[in-house]
Amino acid sequence: MTKIRVGIAGYGNLGKGVEMAIAQNPDMELVGVFTRRQPQDVKTIRPETKAYHIDDAAKMTNDIDVMILCGGSATDLPKQGPEFVKLFHTIDSFDTHAKIPEYFEHMDQTAKAAGKVGIISVGWDPGLFSLNRMYAGAVLPNGKDYTFWGKGISQGHSDAIRRIEGVQDAKQYTIPIEKAVEEVRSGSNPELTTREKHLRECFVVAKPGADTAKIEQEIKTMPNYFSDYDTVVHFISQEELNERHSGMPHGGFVIRSGKTGANQETKQIIEYNLKLESNPEFTGSVLVAYARAAYRMSQEGVTGAKTVLDVPPAYLSAKSGAELRKELL
Amino acid sequence: MTKIRVGIAGYGNLGKGVEMAIAQNPDMELVGVFTRRQPQDVKTIRPETKAYHIDDAAKMTNDIDVMILCGGSATDLPKQGPEFVKLFHTIDSFDTHAKIPEYFEHMDQTAKAAGKVGIISVGWDPGLFSLNRMYAGAVLPNGKDYTFWGKGISQGHSDAIRRIEGVQDAKQYTIPIEKAVEEVRSGSNPELTTREKHLRECFVVAKPGADTAKIEQEIKTMPNYFSDYDTVVHFISQEELNERHSGMPHGGFVIRSGKTGANQETKQIIEYNLKLESNPEFTGSVLVAYARAAYRMSQEGVTGAKTVLDVPPAYLSAKSGAELRKELL
Repeated sequence: MTKIRVGIAGYGNLGKGVEMAIAQNPDMELVGVFTRRQPQDVKTIRPETKAYHIDDAAKMTNDIDVMILCGGSATDLPKQGPEFVKLFHTIDSFDTHAKIPEYFEHMDQTAKAAGKVGIISVGWDPGLFSLNRMYAGAVLPNGKDYTFWGKGISQGHSDAIRRIEGVQDAKQYTIPIEKAVEEVRSGSNPELTTREKHLRECFVVAKPGADTAKIEQEIKTMPNYFSDYDTVVHFISQEELNERHSGMPHGGFVIRSGKTGANQETKQIIEYNLKLESNPEFTGSVLVAYARAAYRMSQEGVTGAKTVLDVPPAYLSAKSGAELRKELL
Repeated sequence: MTKIRVGIAGYGNLGKGVEMAIAQNPDMELVGVFTRRQPQDVKTIRPETKAYHIDDAAKMTNDIDVMILCGGSATDLPKQGPEFVKLFHTIDSFDTHAKIPEYFEHMDQTAKAAGKVGIISVGWDPGLFSLNRMYAGAVLPNGKDYTFWGKGISQGHSDAIRRIEGVQDAKQYTIPIEKAVEEVRSGSNPELTTREKHLRECFVVAKPGADTAKIEQEIKTMPNYFSDYDTVVHFISQEELNERHSGMPHGGFVIRSGKTGANQETKQIIEYNLKLESNPEFTGSVLVAYARAAYRMSQEGVTGAKTVLDVPPAYLSAKSGAELRKELL
């Protein structure tokens, strides 16, 4: 079997997740990770993984089929996506919601001109959650979608707390509020405010001598991040933070609550639920499955930008159509 | 907008579910229901729905784009599927698991020869559950699938009880066993026997003077249907059965419990969960969404048999790619 040759561009938590996921897929081969650091300074999770400088990727177009882009959506991907899709099929997790249409157009034109496939906005939200909103909405046109996130660490909110004066370190958990979840699951289609859906719980390490009351006040009133939520702040030691809050769990659920029947009074509930001990390892696993799909679509002559909504599910699997029909239907 | 013109072949509970679902989709038009009965004897749910004799369908190839086949898998579909896909694009809910590969081949050859698309085995299991096994298995290759059904009415098991001597009427509920579900959700990947996963609860109306102890014994020891399960039997009156057990609720969940990470020790759980007040109305809604997909695929020149695993998700929606990217990603 010819293996699908994969590269990883960007080697943070997500890149590491992708590295580990590729090792679970025998039809794939990791050619190397590409980093802006000095390659010799990069310690990879698997000793056999090779590290290259990101500028060397352009010389390796004959060695790599699919490049999985593991940079951030704010500054890395808008630049790297179009650059890399000129050279390789690409997968990325672009998640700046408002800019997806514009990014899609840019990637689509570039990928088509280069004869490549670029699957954008892959992961779980956007990604698997989007797919579930798509399927559930098509099946139950008369209905309402609810998305809850957590319990899990929000990197963005943790970073926002760390920028406050007097804060040494912090982790923020987004927590769905059980009462709201139960209401939605009952099919009552409630109207829920931001505050009613999620709680924000913060574990903060204050610098010695810092004014904790002031820090707590600044967190709770921070616009966009916290002011619309009920927020709980705990001050703890760096040791406790390291020991008890160093994981990267996440998850959440998408619920569509719809009605069918002649009088639109039959309740039908579809729920998709993720409980993840490691967000980057899971997201990496999703990216890898879509790397296979990009490769298989390219083999059939497909080019351009795609999203999870465009990819036939069977392309994600290494198994044949006949095997899948026998085992999964 | 040109509407997609749909016919319904077979007018039992599922056909009625499809009829009601079409009314929820403004891009579709129900041309009529086709029945083996005398059309004038058929009372449709919606007064405007026309009924035709099923033998008249062949004359209406210019009037119908997609025929949704609502017959049973045992005897109707193996015959009707290939007959109808010569004339129309078709959707069916063929669910005799062991015969799906053979049915697929037959439908594929016939559909290709006729230049039609036939999407087979659509519904929730097979159907949406198959899709979720597909996605979850591709994302978490190191993992285990669990499918639970219920709480819901099993038509097949209810019928089996009704065939016992002395039984006037019966309904059987398949009920997932909470302890097993919780074990699976914990990520412990238990090995579960048939008996540990589901309970069978039967509501039986005995004929006057019938030997209820004997009926109960016959139910509990019936091979394939009940003997591998813990089965609870309640004898009730016909009035109570009609009043409290005339609905057709169902549902269930597919859970994939997988591991990621360098040492395969990070737990990741994906769950897909349906709670349906009406099984036929929900299944009908799924068939209708795939009728749209069949039509759209045919517009692009696709022919042959397909399953839910082959259909790009976006084809299920009436919305454009740009709208979907904006609203769902």
